[in-house]
Amino acid sequence: MEIKVGIVGGTGYTGVELLRILVNHPQVEISVVTSRSDAGVRIDSVYPSFHGLLDLCFIEPDIQSLTECDVVFFATPNGTAMWMADALLEKGVKVIDLSADFRIKDPKIWANWYGEEHASPGLIEKAVYGLPEINREAIKKADLIACPGCYPTAVQLGFLPLIENSLIDLNHLIADVKSGVSGAGRKANVGTLMSETGESFKAYAVEGHRHLPEVTQGLEQVAKRSVDLTFVPHLTPMIRGIHATLYGRLNSGDDIQALFEQYYHDEPFVTVLPKGAHPDTRNVRGSNHCQMAVHQPQSGRMVVVLSVIDNLVKGAAGQAVQNMNLMFGFDEKEALEIVALYP
Amino acid sequence: MEIKVGIVGGTGYTGVELLRILVNHPQVEISVVTSRSDAGVRIDSVYPSFHGLLDLCFIEPDIQSLTECDVVFFATPNGTAMWMADALLEKGVKVIDLSADFRIKDPKIWANWYGEEHASPGLIEKAVYGLPEINREAIKKADLIACPGCYPTAVQLGFLPLIENSLIDLNHLIADVKSGVSGAGRKANVGTLMSETGESFKAYAVEGHRHLPEVTQGLEQVAKRSVDLTFVPHLTPMIRGIHATLYGRLNSGDDIQALFEQYYHDEPFVTVLPKGAHPDTRNVRGSNHCQMAVHQPQSGRMVVVLSVIDNLVKGAAGQAVQNMNLMFGFDEKEALEIVALYP
Amino acid sequence: MEIKVGIVGGTGYTGVELLRILVNHPQVEISVVTSRSDAGVRIDSVYPSFHGLLDLCFIEPDIQSLTECDVVFFATPNGTAMWMADALLEKGVKVIDLSADFRIKDPKIWANWYGEEHASPGLIEKAVYGLPEINREAIKKADLIACPGCYPTAVQLGFLPLIENSLIDLNHLIADVKSGVSGAGRKANVGTLMSETGESFKAYAVEGHRHLPEVTQGLEQVAKRSVDLTFVPHLTPMIRGIHATLYGRLNSGDDIQALFEQYYHDEPFVTVLPKGAHPDTRNVRGSNHCQMAVHQPQSGRMVVVLSVIDNLVKGAAGQAVQNMNLMFGFDEKEALEIVALYP
Amino acid sequence: MEIKVGIVGGTGYTGVELLRILVNHPQVEISVVTSRSDAGVRIDSVYPSFHGLLDLCFIEPDIQSLTECDVVFFATPNGTAMWMADALLEKGVKVIDLSADFRIKDPKIWANWYGEEHASPGLIEKAVYGLPEINREAIKKADLIACPGCYPTAVQLGFLPLIENSLIDLNHLIADVKSGVSGAGRKANVGTLMSETGESFKAYAVEGHRHLPEVTQGLEQVAKRSVDLTFVPHLTPMIRGIHATLYGRLNSGDDIQALFEQYYHDEPFVTVLPKGAHPDTRNVRGSNHCQMAVHQPQSGRMVVVLSVIDNLVKGAAGQAVQNMNLMFGFDEKEALEIVALYP
Repeated sequence: MEIKVGIVGGTGYTGVELLRILVNHPQVEISVVTSRSDAGVRIDSVYPSFHGLLDLCFIEPDIQSLTECDVVFFATPNGTAMWMADALLEKGVKVIDLSADFRIKDPKIWANWYGEEHASPGLIEKAVYGLPEINREAIKKADLIACPGCYPTAVQLGFLPLIENSLIDLNHLIADVKSGVSGAGRKANVGTLMSETGESFKAYAVEGHRHLPEVTQGLEQVAKRSVDLTFVPHLTPMIRGIHATLYGRLNSGDDIQALFEQYYHDEPFVTVLPKGAHPDTRNVRGSNHCQMAVHQPQSGRMVVVLSVIDNLVKGAAGQAVQNMNLMFGFDEKEALEIVALYP
Repeated sequence: MEIKVGIVGGTGYTGVELLRILVNHPQVEISVVTSRSDAGVRIDSVYPSFHGLLDLCFIEPDIQSLTECDVVFFATPNGTAMWMADALLEKGVKVIDLSADFRIKDPKIWANWYGEEHASPGLIEKAVYGLPEINREAIKKADLIACPGCYPTAVQLGFLPLIENSLIDLNHLIADVKSGVSGAGRKANVGTLMSETGESFKAYAVEGHRHLPEVTQGLEQVAKRSVDLTFVPHLTPMIRGIHATLYGRLNSGDDIQALFEQYYHDEPFVTVLPKGAHPDTRNVRGSNHCQMAVHQPQSGRMVVVLSVIDNLVKGAAGQAVQNMNLMFGFDEKEALEIVALYP
Repeated sequence: MEIKVGIVGGTGYTGVELLRILVNHPQVEISVVTSRSDAGVRIDSVYPSFHGLLDLCFIEPDIQSLTECDVVFFATPNGTAMWMADALLEKGVKVIDLSADFRIKDPKIWANWYGEEHASPGLIEKAVYGLPEINREAIKKADLIACPGCYPTAVQLGFLPLIENSLIDLNHLIADVKSGVSGAGRKANVGTLMSETGESFKAYAVEGHRHLPEVTQGLEQVAKRSVDLTFVPHLTPMIRGIHATLYGRLNSGDDIQALFEQYYHDEPFVTVLPKGAHPDTRNVRGSNHCQMAVHQPQSGRMVVVLSVIDNLVKGAAGQAVQNMNLMFGFDEKEALEIVALYP
Repeated sequence: MEIKVGIVGGTGYTGVELLRILVNHPQVEISVVTSRSDAGVRIDSVYPSFHGLLDLCFIEPDIQSLTECDVVFFATPNGTAMWMADALLEKGVKVIDLSADFRIKDPKIWANWYGEEHASPGLIEKAVYGLPEINREAIKKADLIACPGCYPTAVQLGFLPLIENSLIDLNHLIADVKSGVSGAGRKANVGTLMSETGESFKAYAVEGHRHLPEVTQGLEQVAKRSVDLTFVPHLTPMIRGIHATLYGRLNSGDDIQALFEQYYHDEPFVTVLPKGAHPDTRNVRGSNHCQMAVHQPQSGRMVVVLSVIDNLVKGAAGQAVQNMNLMFGFDEKEALEIVALYP
């Protein structure tokens, strides 16, 4: 079986990353790739890495063309998918949204953080949060997927084993997270020029980042109560990669290493490294893996989880394809066994 | 058919790059990977990017184990393969050498540039220079391949169409080449620390680089006369990539763009970009492609060829696998349709 | 004596670099710094590196305020200074233009390359080209300085000794030049995002860069005849620094090393490194020095000059201050003995 | 008054950084610079940035020559100064040690973390911890200074106002710190090659870093009781800079912004940025300043302090010179009013 795939917003970093992954997927035909800015232009002219691999032009975003697809990915800025998803779903097209439009269950909270009213609050309930490690069965049956944000993927995967096993004080979670600059997207902006972000490091949005309510919602669903999380994102002078350093106060003296290894034992895309390891973002660069390690320094009362992903792969396009594989009954790993690019 | 593959020197950058490519090759079983420094250690412990993908330990280099392979890659420093190749060839094992041991046809020239006598001068004649774009048929029949150097690949591919068609003054060739730091290999060295090479740019070895005689030999074979080449390598603050800027004085007013397009029309791994283009090393990062563009600025009497490759792929491990595919009758592109990692 | 200094365009990279240098100049009072985008805002709020060092706000560009200065620097985009210089010069204010407005002597050539008619062609003749190494005496008496471009500074300083001494074939000059990304300025632009320029290398504007006519004009003034120069700029993944690799065919067998050392013997900001050296851009990072080395590889018939500067210092703001020092009779090195930042 | 200065270990990064600062210090004559590896070689041959600025050769480390100095800086690996300090102090030479030899008051704790017995435990008591913001008066009278480590400087400056004012829970301090790679020094090492550290981010030494006991000792001296600190260092892909992100649980609802501003009001090298700011390491690159900002995100019960320094300046050589200025009665800011290099 081969399915037809459409991508809305093919010129952004998550769009071109979807292309990189899907062009080698044996059960996928890339049918439609839209781009307002580059409509009519050959994809390999904008992205020369596809020379000889993809014989297609960008087209204007257009519901008609998209409804001929079996599944449509939205690799668009926030606030786009919520206007188009309904029309596609009605025609039986599955929708995988890489933006934030369907991640937050409460439309008021969404409106608070994203600065506008939600355009299709009725769809929010239908949307399945596309983190396979907790929602695999629901994803298989879903028509509409809300792909997790990049930070939320790294943070939730790191905290989940601790929370599900009631090992930490939920009133006192800290996520100190660091991201490469590709997370800011492909848009003209002084703040992400190489002259501004190269050779420098800073925190940003300490007062409140949009991924905070998403992470909190995810952790609270598992905890079945409220959690108090301090979430501090930083910009690090590299292109790809997220490193989450997570801190929690332990309630118990259980062997946490064994618990993590067991928790993720059957997960194809989460690796718990041996005791004492320090995961390095380069080891997941370009790959769909999350690698993590668990530490209990000094007194042992504080657990420190180190969790790394590639923000554009497990944090975006790779996870989206993992969802697609589940939705269509393909091998979950199809097209995703890409080895990280080292060095 | 599945073949058994051995890699001597698996901990260096070209060794691990061979692993990255071969681990997804459907007709290859990676049987033996040697490393003096890490013998006995799991590969995924040294290189965590292989977790779940490669269940193997490094072993000591040992002819016995290697003779059970169908083909052995040498990803070793110069001066290693020339001591071991004979024993393998005698047992019918094919050898693909990524080092410089068999590249230079004249053992005296080799000794001059590499600072020691050649250990098996008798094998040099047997070795086929593994640049498929000029030696494809010979490669198919070869038992011993001398894989081209990284600079020589980028420079020869750029000059060949001009020289074969007698378009430029052979007394006056200039190759201004720029390389990422991974070309210096994975060895402890102050000069390639990030604090030394980051945020800085310099030329090196202007008085004479080991790749000069290799390039000259290759160009002269095609030109069927001597050529005068000035070759200036530079170190650029990035990890992967080579950019060759090649200058030649034109003898003729032929349409050079058409000539280049025609010359490489059927080559799976060389792309001639449209007129006016500027190839970017990122568009071949991690891929086996060479991308190039041709310019005739101002007066039009000088041709400027821009040619980019990934030094570890088309400049080393990828080209080695391309050679292996040809030697064993596999699809030349097998395991090499990796899309460049952008951004 | 202390002079009042104005800076038009204080938020760009050359503007803030002028501030960095002038804030420690004992004979300068920074009186007026203009910025359309940040008028009314404290300088140390936009540029926190000036906390405690500069107690001033940006103001709107305004001729009235600027005429109270002794000298005004234009750190503006091309096409700004030519509209304002006349009014200042009339009031006796000296003008140092860091843009290209007064560099090209022929207004038709200027219009061709800069895409508009020159607004004050009458001033062009008055302008002194601010390269102290060839124009020191004229600069001392000048009222209007056209500061050289960054590439032209590195290229001319490297070629001058060869041309003045008639050592090379003027029909066949090649300048292969590499620049850090700060040369593109501080403006929102996809092409200079870190995700686009980091870890990548490319040539650009091979068909013709605006600095070509400037360099050609400078070399021809010294050669007293026409020269044929191929000029190929490249973008290198670092913030600051220019490396020019210059190629020329030698007419003679003179000792070029001695000639270069002698030529620049008394120049405070040009260092000729010992034979065999390879200047590194990091060794001039943040400093006003040009460092160069001369090579004659292989046959010895081709000379290769390596010339490095910091594009924002000797290639812009530092050279502008050097001009100011000369114009006002200060020590030429005042405020410019900044040691390069290594590592 | 001009003093004679000696530097032991002049080829490392802190040694060359001392040279960069001291070469422009009007009251200092650099008399002796030692280097075992480069003895007899001109300094400007190893470090071309000093061409024309420093006319001196490295010499072998030799007590005789050093005793002719007024003050000697040790920019040596740990375990060197403790063998030489006594001989210098006896001759009346003041000693400023940039290594860890005299930082820890308890020689047993020192031996535990540094893996050898302390060679001159008798001197430890004499040594003054050279953090001027807490020890200014003692420094003025000291003969032997133990310069703080880079991380300890950034962390202590950030926590001090909170601890001195008893605002946070001392049982639960977290310091998530990020350093550029120059902190690892200038030594051949695979782990800090550009190919290994570029474009990647990782934590290291989570189980225990040598700066932990130093920070703890400093905080406990102010707190006058024990503190429980979790300290997690990370390596970030840039050359210079430290960013400390500090977390503490607040006991009180006081206005923390005002408190920080007041606490550092008279400090020449600590800047408290306005509310809502995010200090960026580039704004202190090459400068002796610490810039910090204070946040109370969401609930307000957790305080987040962001504190940045240049690890080689305020974290090493700059702070050492600040100590020297105090010891000799010079202006504390002499030679240290270097503006950060931006961009």
